[in-house]
Amino acid sequence: MKNEQIPKIVISRLPIYIQALNQLLRDNKTVISSMELGEILGITSSQIRKDLSHFGGFGKQGTGYDIILLMESLREILNLNQIWQIVVVGVGHIGQALLNYDGFGRKGFEIVAAYDNSPAVIGKKIGGIEVLSVDQMEEQICSKQIDIAAIAVPAEQAQQVCDRLVKCGIKAILNYAPVALDVPESVQVSAVDPVLELQKMTYYLK
Amino acid sequence: MKNEQIPKIVISRLPIYIQALNQLLRDNKTVISSMELGEILGITSSQIRKDLSHFGGFGKQGTGYDIILLMESLREILNLNQIWQIVVVGVGHIGQALLNYDGFGRKGFEIVAAYDNSPAVIGKKIGGIEVLSVDQMEEQICSKQIDIAAIAVPAEQAQQVCDRLVKCGIKAILNYAPVALDVPESVQVSAVDPVLELQKMTYYLK
Repeated sequence: MKNEQIPKIVISRLPIYIQALNQLLRDNKTVISSMELGEILGITSSQIRKDLSHFGGFGKQGTGYDIILLMESLREILNLNQIWQIVVVGVGHIGQALLNYDGFGRKGFEIVAAYDNSPAVIGKKIGGIEVLSVDQMEEQICSKQIDIAAIAVPAEQAQQVCDRLVKCGIKAILNYAPVALDVPESVQVSAVDPVLELQKMTYYLK
Repeated sequence: MKNEQIPKIVISRLPIYIQALNQLLRDNKTVISSMELGEILGITSSQIRKDLSHFGGFGKQGTGYDIILLMESLREILNLNQIWQIVVVGVGHIGQALLNYDGFGRKGFEIVAAYDNSPAVIGKKIGGIEVLSVDQMEEQICSKQIDIAAIAVPAEQAQQVCDRLVKCGIKAILNYAPVALDVPESVQVSAVDPVLELQKMTYYLK
């Protein structure tokens, strides 16, 4: 139900709000107005108020938002008060960057397994995780309650890997392969493609 | 002028349309309806028609869009019919993944320089690019007409690197550091942060 009520675009802005609020806390601020928050984020203050109104009011007119309170509420809305386990499929340069990335733990995400099909990396330990053969993937993860996978395989293999993961109960996919994945409606896909990001910006560069 | 007229969210969807159209061409399709395109992308057909109406009509009622024509038009709108040069600052795991990524060239992006402050990587050749000291950055890039930079340095250094790049005339930044960058309004920033992407999806995972 809640998925239908709140526009996806609103949900997609909440992590950015949390990031900014975190930064403000580190700068020892305790209260912020929608105007100030909007200036930091390049969003209008009315957009921020409208976004937050989906979740009931935060903060009173004229006094601004209590930063800790707002951040905690947003974290709860996004189900961030738990550890989310992630499997990484594909351990090329991007997969290795993911395995070595130290930002996940602090934010409540934990890579628990990594798979590849190349003997060159199978058996290696990267970022503390032993890379296993993708042939073992189903056997190992289907029985576990893992919700999230990062796909970092070549484009040609991405859909097949995706299908296997979805069959295993994966519900959210971080897709680093430069292709649009076909998934059931119940599965979330977020594409991380530097080319798509660059193409969003070149429009403004003339 | 054109920046003000068309909502940023519309521009941000155009690369995804191009990606889907590319895929359709590879599957030997020549025409597609907004309905079919919407199904592929998980967007309503009316949203697609509304997005495209910002740029004049493409395709006639009932006959669908000519895929090549639509793709060429969108590429032109996004200024993709040229090579865009990119500098990479920070050559840790993410920077190395960028330097080794073979998807840029085919899409019209070319990494022309890479900088780091660590003697461990300065002088090394990665993905065909020699990593240089960040001390030489301004000297080398300020005089050139480079519009785009990828920032892949630790969070604490990102704003300072960003300021230096903006002073050098960089107009678009792909930001891999997990912080919100403060830039002048004329500069585009696109954040590539796996944690932000994951946090957009966990909302739906309960």
